[in-house]
This record gives sequence, structure tokens and C-alpha cells, in this order.
Amino acid sequence: MPHDLARPTLPLRPELAGVEPYGAPQLDVPYALNVNENPYAPSAEVVADIAESVAAAAGGLNRYPDRDFLDLRADLAAYLAVESGVPLAAEQLWAANGSNEIMLHVLQAFGGPGRTAVSFAPTYSMYPEYARDTHTGWVTGRREADFSLDPQVARDTIAELAPSVVLLASPNNPTGTALPTSTVLAVLEAAAQVPGGCVVVVDEAYGEFRRRGTPSALELLADHPHLAVSRTMSKAFGLAGARVGYLAASPALVDALRVVRLPYHLSAVTQAVARAALRHAPTLMAQVGSLRDERDALVVWLRERGLQVADSDANFVLFGVFDDRHAIWQGLLDRGVLIRESGPDGWLRVSVGTPQETAAFKDALVDVAGL
Amino acid sequence: MPHDLARPTLPLRPELAGVEPYGAPQLDVPYALNVNENPYAPSAEVVADIAESVAAAAGGLNRYPDRDFLDLRADLAAYLAVESGVPLAAEQLWAANGSNEIMLHVLQAFGGPGRTAVSFAPTYSMYPEYARDTHTGWVTGRREADFSLDPQVARDTIAELAPSVVLLASPNNPTGTALPTSTVLAVLEAAAQVPGGCVVVVDEAYGEFRRRGTPSALELLADHPHLAVSRTMSKAFGLAGARVGYLAASPALVDALRVVRLPYHLSAVTQAVARAALRHAPTLMAQVGSLRDERDALVVWLRERGLQVADSDANFVLFGVFDDRHAIWQGLLDRGVLIRESGPDGWLRVSVGTPQETAAFKDALVDVAGL
Repeated sequence: MPHDLARPTLPLRPELAGVEPYGAPQLDVPYALNVNENPYAPSAEVVADIAESVAAAAGGLNRYPDRDFLDLRADLAAYLAVESGVPLAAEQLWAANGSNEIMLHVLQAFGGPGRTAVSFAPTYSMYPEYARDTHTGWVTGRREADFSLDPQVARDTIAELAPSVVLLASPNNPTGTALPTSTVLAVLEAAAQVPGGCVVVVDEAYGEFRRRGTPSALELLADHPHLAVSRTMSKAFGLAGARVGYLAASPALVDALRVVRLPYHLSAVTQAVARAALRHAPTLMAQVGSLRDERDALVVWLRERGLQVADSDANFVLFGVFDDRHAIWQGLLDRGVLIRESGPDGWLRVSVGTPQETAAFKDALVDVAGL
Repeated sequence: MPHDLARPTLPLRPELAGVEPYGAPQLDVPYALNVNENPYAPSAEVVADIAESVAAAAGGLNRYPDRDFLDLRADLAAYLAVESGVPLAAEQLWAANGSNEIMLHVLQAFGGPGRTAVSFAPTYSMYPEYARDTHTGWVTGRREADFSLDPQVARDTIAELAPSVVLLASPNNPTGTALPTSTVLAVLEAAAQVPGGCVVVVDEAYGEFRRRGTPSALELLADHPHLAVSRTMSKAFGLAGARVGYLAASPALVDALRVVRLPYHLSAVTQAVARAALRHAPTLMAQVGSLRDERDALVVWLRERGLQVADSDANFVLFGVFDDRHAIWQGLLDRGVLIRESGPDGWLRVSVGTPQETAAFKDALVDVAGL
């Protein structure tokens, strides 16, 4: 008999067999510096505005939400125009439940069976999962020892693999490395040569944390209809729990995402929460400024103690190199500080917290690593 | 030259070329009876509870949400136990942004390239889109003239096609037809014989509207680990705008969905809204009772006027047969009543509204169809 009728086989796809669900451990610790959250909880003003906006939306929740959410898209466009100086139309914006759903939409529209997505390692560990979930081939080219991307390596990789999607995290996770405009342009040019077309996604989840003078790929949108720049409200806006990712691109690219999105994917409540938070952007961006300062000071402090530290344009810092990084990680956890074992062997990633959290991290690290 | 560098080709998947985004027209009309929404807006008590719950959650939105949301899953299990009399554990529940995301998870885990999903037409028009979005083959068997499903046809279709997923809407959309337990059992038995395994999803989006004596497939869960029963808070709970779909199944089946879900797919706000509404289930279910009565009266009224009407266990009614259904649809719309051109040729679908909305529909129909 092929199988037990009382326990029929579940036809789980073979590539998923034995795979654990993705995600960092959700541990209850005094200092959670492991998933690059914004340490500042929404202020009383933001909470009140969110609650009021949701109450207003709740009265109509028996109706389906606005499927095209052009009000939210206009608000996002207005925010980006202020943040980056790049004027954008609502039709150039798209939003979803987290930027991971944004990436899913991109790979559903432009990836899939028989196609390849490319990135440059070390980079964000979710990318291969998006590829797997959409049956898109996944190949990584390499970054240099300092985690920068050599434009010639990028060009050669794209020419060789002819991907339909290139994912570039800038600032990169887990290294914090931002790409110069010249490198993004090299990738865009190489992508334009791919027969059948190739979309380049610059993932700027940490874009607001970039150092002064570091450009945003938003500046390249007008001239490159095959470019998409993704952002999130999880980090700078301190809204990881609300799940709002978004993307700016040419209207044609956005229209392709509209075909593959599940209808009504963005709830009326999520739309209301996002719009409420966007009204407080100036206050929230001031907080981003202090996190940037805190980050820069942490980089200096770690270097002064003889550690290697990757230049960071994000709200986290990658540092090392330890012979036994797991022992350091565990020692910190034993002292109530949870960070992340991420990046190449020997490196660790710590999120930038409040001054108090950073102090706790420093104390624990001095203790554990004997700095 | 293969293409214009200034306008690089977007590598849109060929099967998406020229496809319009799914969805009924979102028109502003006095009587919207086209998408099976619950006509009753959340009460002041429900709105207040939602706003209070979201305010409480908003204070922690800088943190990622609970990825496994076991509190919500326990609340959903408790609700289903009351609604259907079937005891369920939190680990048997799953939730997502609408039951369309639930279906996406099912097809990502169990469908995909080289596999087939089967349903029986006429049925829900989104199913082929879920299949397309996951590169799953899509085949429909047929329902009988009265929209019932012949168990032998079901058995033969499954034996012939060896699908990895069978989708059964019960009550079916757009016909309103519920499946008897014997038919679901026939499908489960045939599915258990499929080499490699086959998951059967009974889509009970409209389950709470079933007539007294109509069983729920939840009763079959304990003995059938390859069965999943999906539900939604969009209809009975009047929360279409909040996007909360869910599913009950064996823990092993739910575990497979956990692998393919995007991490943190369900926001802390959505979790809070759903839990708030679930606390008001008894009040909301009383409203469902009056919608059922309204539905039954509408079926009688339409039959009394000589129309054919499909038996309905849902919050909508399929009626006909018109030589020119589009003319009827347009005539109703001209009188401010928006219904849906759905189902086989000549049939129309109307959602059950408030008594006032139903009266407006009846008046307009008498006028337009000359009943």
C-alpha cells in the first residue's frame, strides 16, 4: 500500500521539507538589539493620532478597503519628496504588508520559474526565501572584503547570468554598506542590456539612516524605468509592528505589481495607521537624526577598542572579527543583551538602541570580550 | 538593436501581459450589493473596543509583531468551537491578511510548478488567480445544473488529475451552494488516494450564513489530516476592511504554512483588531441570524416572481435566468443598485443587505425586469 489512509501524506513541496520558518528568536530580554528595530516607541501624540484614525476607519470596516489606496500612495510620495528631494507622483508608489510583501510582488511579476534573481553577498538573508517562494532561481555574486560592490564585478555577473531581477540592498543588511551612485548606475546599465529585460530593486529599508552626503537611488528613478526603490516604515518611522513597506518606481513597473497583488491586500486599518504616522514624519525624522549620531559614536567606540567595524549607513553596526562569535553572542545574551549572529564568519551585528541600551551593550561587550 | 536603452523592457511574465488587476468596480453608489459585504457597520461598542485595542498595541509598534500570534489563534479556536461545536487547539489555526493570503500560503506549500489544483465550476473567480500567482496548474471539474457537486464526478476528476490541492467552496461563491458531508467525504477519500498526497481546502468564507442543519467541514477535521477549512472575518464579523482570513487544519498542515508565510505577515494592529472583534462574536452572530432570515425571505420573493434562484447558504443570492443579464445589471445600477454579473450566463448575484437596501433592490428589479 502506498500510504496509510488514516494518515494521508501531505504534498509538501520537496524544497520545503525540513525547513524551519524564518525568523530571529523572539526572546524576552532586557536589551533587544537583534532585529534592527527603532528603539523609540511611538510617542503619545503618534499613538493618539493612530487610535483616532483607526477609530474613524473602524466605522466602515464592513466594507472592503480602497484597493488602490491612492491617498496613502500620495502621502508616501509627498514624504519621499521631502526626504530625498525627488518629486514623485502617487502612481509611482506602491505599498504592501512589509517590504517583504513588496519583494514578493516584484518577484511574482518579474521573476518565477525559468528566471533568475541576483544579489551580491553578504546581503539580506530573506532574499533567497523570496526567490524560493516564487520559484525564481537565486544566485549571488560577491562583494569585496570591505563589503563594497565592485562595479565591474556587478556588470560581469549580470552579463553572465542575465537575471530578470537584481536586488541591491543599500544600505546593505547586515553590513550597513551604502552603494555609491556610480555603482547603482553600472548595475542599471548592465541590467538594461539583459535580453528580455531586468528590473533593479534598490532596497533602501534603512535609507533614512544614511550618513550626510550618501545619495538615495530615488534620484535615479526619473531616467530609469527599470529601477525600483523599496523603503519601509518599520525602521525610521518605528512601525515594525504595523507592517508597511513601500516602493517607488515608474508607473509601468507599479502597474505590473498591481496585477499580482492579492486584491485588497492592504487593510483599511493599515492604511489609516500609515497615514497617521506619516503626518508625524518631521518629529520622527528628528529621532532618526539622534540614532544616526548614536550609531556613529558606537562605530568610533568599537574601533577605539581595536575591533573591525564596517562603515554603516544603517541603524545597526557589523563588527568583529571574533574567533568564536557564538561565545560572544551567548555571553552578551547571558548579560541580557540580545544581538545577532549575522554576516560572514566571526562578525556580529548590533542594532543601535537608546543611549541606555547602547551603554548596556558596551558594558556587556567589555566584560565578555575583555576589551 | 534589441531594445531602446532609454526605455528598457520590463521583464513582465508573459502570462501577466495585458491582464487587468482583479476586482469588482469600486463605484460610489447608494446601494452596494456587489461584493457580499456585511451591510452592518461595526457598532459603537465594537469601534470603541477596536480603537482601545489598537491604541494599546500602538505603544509597541516600534517592535516587530508576534510572528506566531498564538493568542489570536487561540481566540479563533475558541470562537470556532462555539460556532461549530468542534474543539480545536491554537496550533490548528492559522491566519493571514484575508483568506486570499491563506489560499496563497496553501498553494505555496502544496501547489507550485508541476502540480495541479482542482475545483468545480462555477466557483470563486479568484481561485485561478491564486493558481497563476503560484505557478500551479489549474483545472476545473463541473458542477451539476443545480450547482451541486456529484460525488462520483468529484472522485473521477480527482483520480484522473491527481491534483495536490482541491479547493471546494462551501457555501460556494457565486452560487450559494453548500456541500453535504457525504460529498466532502467522497472528495477526502479520493484525495487520500492521490500518490504524493493531496490537500483538500473547504473554503467556508460564508460558513456562518449556512442554514440550520447544514454541516461545517470542521466536523471532519479530527479524522482528516489532509483537510483544511478556511474562514474569514470579512463576512460574518463585518470586517472586510480589516483583512483577516483564517484556516483550521491538522497541526502538521499548519506547520507547512508557517514555512512559506512571509515573516511577520500579520501586523500587531491586525492582531489587535481581530481579537477585539472576536470578543463581540455573540452580538455579531445575532446580526448574522437576521441576515440569514433576510436572505431566506429574498429567495422566496424572487421565486414568487417566477425567477430561478439557487438555494443559498451564504449572504448572497444567485438568480436568473435573463436573456440579457448585462441590461438588467445596468438598469439596476442606473437606479443606484450595484449588484454583480457573476456565475453562468444569464445569472446575477446580489448580496443580502439591510432591509432598506433589499427593498431598494426589489423595487429596482421590479422596475427593470418588469416582474
